[in-house]
Amino acid sequence: MQIEIINTGSELMLGRVLNTHQQWLCRQLSDLGYVVARQLAISDEGPQIQSALRESLARADLILTTGGLGPTSDDRTRDLVAELLGVELERNNEVLERILHFFTSRNRPMPESVKVQALVPCGALVLMNAHGTAPGLVIEVPAGRFRNASTMLVMLPGPPRELRPMFTEQVVPLLKQNLPCETEFVCRVLKTTGLGESRVEEIIAPELKHLTDAGLELGYCARTGEVDVRFIGRGCGAQENVAEAESIVRRLIGDHVFGVDDEQLETTLIHLLTERKQTLALAESCTGGYIANRITNVPGASAVLWGGAVSYANESKSKWLGVSEATLAAHGAVSKETAREMVEGARRISGANFAISVTGIAGPDGGSDEKPVGTVFIGFADANGSRVYKFLNQYDRETFKYVTSQQALEILRRAVEKAES
Amino acid sequence: MQIEIINTGSELMLGRVLNTHQQWLCRQLSDLGYVVARQLAISDEGPQIQSALRESLARADLILTTGGLGPTSDDRTRDLVAELLGVELERNNEVLERILHFFTSRNRPMPESVKVQALVPCGALVLMNAHGTAPGLVIEVPAGRFRNASTMLVMLPGPPRELRPMFTEQVVPLLKQNLPCETEFVCRVLKTTGLGESRVEEIIAPELKHLTDAGLELGYCARTGEVDVRFIGRGCGAQENVAEAESIVRRLIGDHVFGVDDEQLETTLIHLLTERKQTLALAESCTGGYIANRITNVPGASAVLWGGAVSYANESKSKWLGVSEATLAAHGAVSKETAREMVEGARRISGANFAISVTGIAGPDGGSDEKPVGTVFIGFADANGSRVYKFLNQYDRETFKYVTSQQALEILRRAVEKAES
Repeated sequence: MQIEIINTGSELMLGRVLNTHQQWLCRQLSDLGYVVARQLAISDEGPQIQSALRESLARADLILTTGGLGPTSDDRTRDLVAELLGVELERNNEVLERILHFFTSRNRPMPESVKVQALVPCGALVLMNAHGTAPGLVIEVPAGRFRNASTMLVMLPGPPRELRPMFTEQVVPLLKQNLPCETEFVCRVLKTTGLGESRVEEIIAPELKHLTDAGLELGYCARTGEVDVRFIGRGCGAQENVAEAESIVRRLIGDHVFGVDDEQLETTLIHLLTERKQTLALAESCTGGYIANRITNVPGASAVLWGGAVSYANESKSKWLGVSEATLAAHGAVSKETAREMVEGARRISGANFAISVTGIAGPDGGSDEKPVGTVFIGFADANGSRVYKFLNQYDRETFKYVTSQQALEILRRAVEKAES
Repeated sequence: MQIEIINTGSELMLGRVLNTHQQWLCRQLSDLGYVVARQLAISDEGPQIQSALRESLARADLILTTGGLGPTSDDRTRDLVAELLGVELERNNEVLERILHFFTSRNRPMPESVKVQALVPCGALVLMNAHGTAPGLVIEVPAGRFRNASTMLVMLPGPPRELRPMFTEQVVPLLKQNLPCETEFVCRVLKTTGLGESRVEEIIAPELKHLTDAGLELGYCARTGEVDVRFIGRGCGAQENVAEAESIVRRLIGDHVFGVDDEQLETTLIHLLTERKQTLALAESCTGGYIANRITNVPGASAVLWGGAVSYANESKSKWLGVSEATLAAHGAVSKETAREMVEGARRISGANFAISVTGIAGPDGGSDEKPVGTVFIGFADANGSRVYKFLNQYDRETFKYVTSQQALEILRRAVEKAES
């Protein structure tokens, strides 16, 4: 089955907006067993949109478009599709009523232009929009027009808050009914850290050869400090082959596997702590709240997180964490000693089971010969005492924060796991 | 000039990775006056990559590919391009030496497979990789092969840390020399909040008609709580037309404009506070460190941010911010009274010029009839006292944090700007 996504929007081509639709839609589809063959992004210009559609219609069983259904003059997908397919636009009264209601219920004046969103290509199925005014549209393009089979053309509005529930609640049931998946499809990703991409392959590929020879797909994706190992199985036995591959890789490099699929370290950590009814306190300097932010992204974090001090100024390290002025004066804010007093203070004040502290130089300024930009001390404390780790994370500011937060969360994860055994 | 980007990677099509290359490359190019016409993502499969390349070679003056140059078996761009163009791969000794050095200098064992990265299509220009082992490649595909003009094919490695400096330092100079921009190109984005997309257009479009009639492009992009207004001018007078459009829009809806281009609220705020040598303290509950994280993403934040308490548990609100237990007992953690004591405590303890506090219910659980999920109190304090704002932000957890942080930063921005006048 050929599936293609067309994202329209000049803001995409100008690099003003990140295209999150691609990942989100591809992920939803692949979890259902559908794999997207092509994703294309183009500007809002008519000829671009029509030629992209024409090409896709000659190939695809399913086309998903995003954007171009709104009320402004650069929203042209509706008209361009109608023109390309040679159908008229007609007013849909239910859509019109919903648009009127959208504005009256919010006590907002209704610009005349929004009514254009009630125009629907003849014969299209309308997907009502629970979070906005532009409806989605589904058109079954019959065989013989662009190729010798029919194509399901699904048009979705651009704002993620509108697109996502519309896809999940309305498009997925349509797909399952009209374009059911024929073969089993299993995708599993093991997230590893501490080995390079080629080293990972060198270790695991020979041991997986009997499975890859039998059709298992093996892929790698290298990221900062991490390598994803991906298994894809299709058809009969897919589930078993992927499970066998996973157990082989865990046997070979299990120490380096810190998660599976989309599992984030913070999710694993919160689940571990929640199960054990244990708590956590944070003391962040150079990561500036990034660790707290990641942890509080996980629903249920409030049962685990006592709190975190983003202790940027020295004074805040003293007042919130009890770091002594003498230590700060003698060793500086970025030091093993300060990291230790931060983490011990966080644990003492909170009474939490575990505490972690981070102090370092995120850059771009503030480095010295002795302590270059990227220097980080991470302190850890539990009932058995405290210890401090030193790292050198020489990246741009945001990557620095990410890598440092990964190290801190991984120290916590290993400690919490070990504490049980 | 036709410019196309081809992103390869099965992880993209499976929705396992967000394609940040598209935005980054499109933005770099558009800032230089080049506009990307098409961006295509496909899997690592050979037929997919070759057919995409063949189509692009028939249209484009410049093609940029990302990914597929690494050492693992799914890195196939190098071979597929050589095969498509009918050229041999030959060993490049400089690349090989750099790969050897990469491993020896890190004291890491070198897997045999990494040497494949030293294979280069005959005649290709090699772009050395300062941050990894896979070199970039540039091939001038002569006129007559795929179309009646030549095409510059630039292949870049997938990891952002390797791709970005390679593009900036090596590809941009090549482009300026070999494919210079012919016409002036100006893009400007005004970021607005508080008006719907159609309402913005209704107000501004008629007043800009003389400019759009003369060729100025006007675009809109609606996001959660925000609408971007985008002007594009090309050719002679572009700069002046865009400047005139901006001043008209500022006259009409200036109160709603909170930034331009990529300007984030936190950047604006840090710059304002730095100029005025003023400081800031934060007290975050439901945003969980997200505001602190945004602020500390801005280089120089340490001159402004005293610190932030991520006071998740009630006890942390008392210990770090001095919120009274009586207030928490009488009104609850999510209340006007708690927000006020949090922000007053943050300002008192820090001595900062400004403080902001946030307490609310991020969800998905924890709501009640009286205080549904999404309820937020934002407290503000400066030398003149404190005040509390109430919002209802009914979104998923991460969007809730984003919208709430926008509201808090906007309250701060307006207060800091007003404090001067």
